[in-house]
Amino acid sequence: MRLDLINTGTELVLGRTVNTHLSYLGEKLFLAGLRIQRQICIPDGDVIGDVLNERMPHADIIIVTGGLGPTSDDITRELISEMLGLELHFDDAVADNVKSYYALRNRPFGEGGKRQSMVPEGAIVLPNNHGTAPGLYLPKTKKNPHLFLLPGPPRELYPMFEDETIPYLRKIVGQTDVESKEWKFCGMGESELAEHLEPLLSKIPELEIGYCAKTMEVHLRCVGSDNSLIQANKIVRNKYPHHVVSDDLKLIEEVVVELLREKGQWVTFAESCTGGFLAHRLTNVSGASAVLAEAHVTYANEVKTRLLDVDPKSIEAHGVVSAKVVTQMAEGALKVSGADHALAITGIAGPTGGSDEKPVGTVYLGLASKGAETHAEKCFYPIDRESFKWRTTQRAFDLLRRRLLGYPFE
Amino acid sequence: MRLDLINTGTELVLGRTVNTHLSYLGEKLFLAGLRIQRQICIPDGDVIGDVLNERMPHADIIIVTGGLGPTSDDITRELISEMLGLELHFDDAVADNVKSYYALRNRPFGEGGKRQSMVPEGAIVLPNNHGTAPGLYLPKTKKNPHLFLLPGPPRELYPMFEDETIPYLRKIVGQTDVESKEWKFCGMGESELAEHLEPLLSKIPELEIGYCAKTMEVHLRCVGSDNSLIQANKIVRNKYPHHVVSDDLKLIEEVVVELLREKGQWVTFAESCTGGFLAHRLTNVSGASAVLAEAHVTYANEVKTRLLDVDPKSIEAHGVVSAKVVTQMAEGALKVSGADHALAITGIAGPTGGSDEKPVGTVYLGLASKGAETHAEKCFYPIDRESFKWRTTQRAFDLLRRRLLGYPFE
Repeated sequence: MRLDLINTGTELVLGRTVNTHLSYLGEKLFLAGLRIQRQICIPDGDVIGDVLNERMPHADIIIVTGGLGPTSDDITRELISEMLGLELHFDDAVADNVKSYYALRNRPFGEGGKRQSMVPEGAIVLPNNHGTAPGLYLPKTKKNPHLFLLPGPPRELYPMFEDETIPYLRKIVGQTDVESKEWKFCGMGESELAEHLEPLLSKIPELEIGYCAKTMEVHLRCVGSDNSLIQANKIVRNKYPHHVVSDDLKLIEEVVVELLREKGQWVTFAESCTGGFLAHRLTNVSGASAVLAEAHVTYANEVKTRLLDVDPKSIEAHGVVSAKVVTQMAEGALKVSGADHALAITGIAGPTGGSDEKPVGTVYLGLASKGAETHAEKCFYPIDRESFKWRTTQRAFDLLRRRLLGYPFE
Repeated sequence: MRLDLINTGTELVLGRTVNTHLSYLGEKLFLAGLRIQRQICIPDGDVIGDVLNERMPHADIIIVTGGLGPTSDDITRELISEMLGLELHFDDAVADNVKSYYALRNRPFGEGGKRQSMVPEGAIVLPNNHGTAPGLYLPKTKKNPHLFLLPGPPRELYPMFEDETIPYLRKIVGQTDVESKEWKFCGMGESELAEHLEPLLSKIPELEIGYCAKTMEVHLRCVGSDNSLIQANKIVRNKYPHHVVSDDLKLIEEVVVELLREKGQWVTFAESCTGGFLAHRLTNVSGASAVLAEAHVTYANEVKTRLLDVDPKSIEAHGVVSAKVVTQMAEGALKVSGADHALAITGIAGPTGGSDEKPVGTVYLGLASKGAETHAEKCFYPIDRESFKWRTTQRAFDLLRRRLLGYPFE
């Protein structure tokens, strides 16, 4: 199946908005057994007509995003109808949806609402539950390949794509019983994973395997029948019982919040060089307030002493970036907060502040827990400041995840 | 000038990597007086040949990214040379660069290094200071438009584009003395800005004006001669003395760190619903440790009382999301830390926790400063959790910026 993706939007080619449609749709299409052979991005306006004329002979499926809205440069619907000789008719059901959306926001239906309620003959309406303009599916004819016209804004496009478009695509591909599963791994590299899992997974018939190395995480994605995914899951879990963070797309911070909630336990943080990023990531999870009462950024040495009871002599003897100090930070945070677990971080994010002995990128992580020995370890992430923060907090969450599950830290 | 951008990379169409080249290059090209008429993204491999054949008759300039590296699917250089009948020769200067890059990393030069050292006849080499494969510029001939072949990885592409490619593009466009300036505004909308500034700026001859509405920020970009930009700056500064955050691309958190450093002052934070995001943003700025000694996430009421001395009776009487409590949080944080300024935030990020009186999105911001009256205000950002955090911290930084500059808060 040859599939083209066409993204329209002047803001995209002017560089004002990052085009995330390609990565989003590319991934979802892959899971539906499709690959994009070509993606084209063009400004709003009638160039969409030229592009469609060029591409229709070379594609079985064309997905167009954008140009369905109410403004004067939104002309995808009208232009395609004209090109294919399809009459547009006013659709009452669509109009009702647009009207009620506008009514809620005290906006008039007007000419823009009317235009968005027009549907080309033969088109299947894909309801828009997060905006006004519906999507349109024009099934294949002698004149045209399968054409999907979808809205541009991600909050409208993404649910419409997953709920309304994928089922039609699966029918076109003839792949109606295929499922997918994705495992997230922490603490190992892509090549290590591939080397050990590939020989085992490749024995499962008709299972498509893909890897994706993210920063401090590897994702393994399998596409196949329900049964083959159950087999794959057994192999993965058996081979790597401690490295799998999730198999349902959950982020590691979501997994940690869930584990803490299940146990009714609390966590606290004492961050130096990550400057609140650990707390930020955890509190991005809805419901974080059930597991986190307080967290602290203790940049200055004096604050580490005043707030966390770190011994100034330890700082003098070992340096503030040391196993000794991170241990005291974690244990101090545990004590002052009364939490069940405390993560502490102290290091040199850079670009300045490094030395020969402790270069930029050196960081110590500490995890203190009630009734357990405090764990402290040294990591080294010599990289830009924000990536350093990401890697360090990723490892910190994995330490906590492993402690909550009783797994070893390695 | 008709310009096409072609991005090659299988990882892009599979959705594993977000294609940020379009937004990056689109913006830089706009500043050089060029607009992308079409961007095309294709997998690695020989489809690049088809696309170039199709597009060469329709473009004056084509920029290709990716496919210059050492692996077997990197075939852009060879394929284009063959298409245009250009012989490839081994370039010693390029080879030296590749060799020294590999030597530093203990990697052999080998076949891959040799391939990257080949240059088509007539091509101008664009040095790669952050990797191995150089860029190649093939000036316009009867057979081909201006062709720029650039590496795919952003850390190699971006500096090469700015330092080595833009000067050639400016020559092609004949726009050698054009400069640009971008102002960031906080606290006003795009339409308000356009309405008031456009009539004034449009009187400056040959000045190109563009707006870009970001979340809680509007960017105004002008392109023109040095002199016209000086005039534009006068108009902007005169009309909006308090709203301009920067005119040199600095982020608001960078501006705040700079202002604090200049004054030798310290700030601290007491965050509830933003959960450390304020501290995270500030500590993304290198040198933040000179202005921030400590910051606190005080989620639980008990912690607000213990750490910041918030009166439990105030919480009971006014609710924890109130002007009274945020004022006590800010003043408590100021006192406990000894800082010069303290920002406090308490609100309901959602999706749960709202009430009729205080719906999700309600947030209070407080700013206490030594020797000044504490400012408290209510904002309302009913949106998803992460956007809520962004908007709230954006406003918080703007409050601090205004106080540091002696500007009014409105």
